[in-house]
Amino acid sequence: MDFFPSALENLIDKFSTLPGIGRKTAQRLAFFVISLPDGEAQAFAQAIADAKHFVRCCSICLNLTDGDTCAVCRNERRDASVICVVSDPKGVLAIERSHEYNGRYHVLHGVISPMNNVGPDDIRIKELIERVADTGVEEVIMATNPDTEGETTARYISRLLKPFEIKVTRLAYGIPVGGSLEFADDATLMRALEGRLEI
Amino acid sequence: MDFFPSALENLIDKFSTLPGIGRKTAQRLAFFVISLPDGEAQAFAQAIADAKHFVRCCSICLNLTDGDTCAVCRNERRDASVICVVSDPKGVLAIERSHEYNGRYHVLHGVISPMNNVGPDDIRIKELIERVADTGVEEVIMATNPDTEGETTARYISRLLKPFEIKVTRLAYGIPVGGSLEFADDATLMRALEGRLEI
Repeated sequence: MDFFPSALENLIDKFSTLPGIGRKTAQRLAFFVISLPDGEAQAFAQAIADAKHFVRCCSICLNLTDGDTCAVCRNERRDASVICVVSDPKGVLAIERSHEYNGRYHVLHGVISPMNNVGPDDIRIKELIERVADTGVEEVIMATNPDTEGETTARYISRLLKPFEIKVTRLAYGIPVGGSLEFADDATLMRALEGRLEI
Repeated sequence: MDFFPSALENLIDKFSTLPGIGRKTAQRLAFFVISLPDGEAQAFAQAIADAKHFVRCCSICLNLTDGDTCAVCRNERRDASVICVVSDPKGVLAIERSHEYNGRYHVLHGVISPMNNVGPDDIRIKELIERVADTGVEEVIMATNPDTEGETTARYISRLLKPFEIKVTRLAYGIPVGGSLEFADDATLMRALEGRLEI
């Protein structure tokens, strides 16, 4: 179906390569973009080019940044002896949102996933081990997602960290706040019982 | 929440201005774009700039094109005495897909909609009347959407076309092919009965 002008077809194609965007949605988006005023469409194009050009990984924790290091690593008041390990930058955002954590981060940029051909060497584990070896880290908190791949990755890393004799912890499992017992799955309930705390 | 590098925040903002794209989806799209290889991200940015730059309205039918006139208007084998009036370029695409129509088009770029402050002068009705006045058009087929606004627009235009004493028709209403009587709404059934044909 090559009915629209080729520049428009091309834009529709580009939009439909985005995750979760089908052909129809891509069409709607492309039509919207060409209906924008000149300046706004240019700004959109520029935003893509800029994001690609300026955004890189922090040289310490591999979180996304536009400088050499990220805002967390630059912040002297953040506790450098605790590292929270997340699978991607969105994990950092989620934990920052809780305003509960004052340590540093390490972004793995993936999880070990044999099904998707992602092995330990394909994610940034080496950099974490080097950081732990070089600096006075006292605790590593594993905050990968609570699914099979996240679990596997957390266990794999905790094994690698054994020789350093530091504390390696895992985010607690349990019933989500505001959740309902009725709808909690068996595995979560089991973990919630195991991890019960005195009140 | 200004946690990501500003270039990335900016791209997320841009994506979230697109129709039907919320903040979370915009984040996912922006992350995907910055994870693309350099060349592909550049090509995406370029596609937006190009689409905005090259795509314009056909000088005859106002359909989208990258030349002066569109492929349909350039095609000498298309019957210039029949004009099918649609509200937007997607309507042209839909009718072309049926491979049933061999006339020309006229794209209104909107429908009359008092609720949205769109009056007859805000859409391209004037250009249609001029075409009908200037060239030997024998039939105008109204193919606006079968909703209140599409109907209003079709009636308004058909009134304007009265003085030219040409045939003005409307796409037939009825039960969609492959549809089920059970799920047809009352208005559609009524129209299907009214428009019944001898077999």
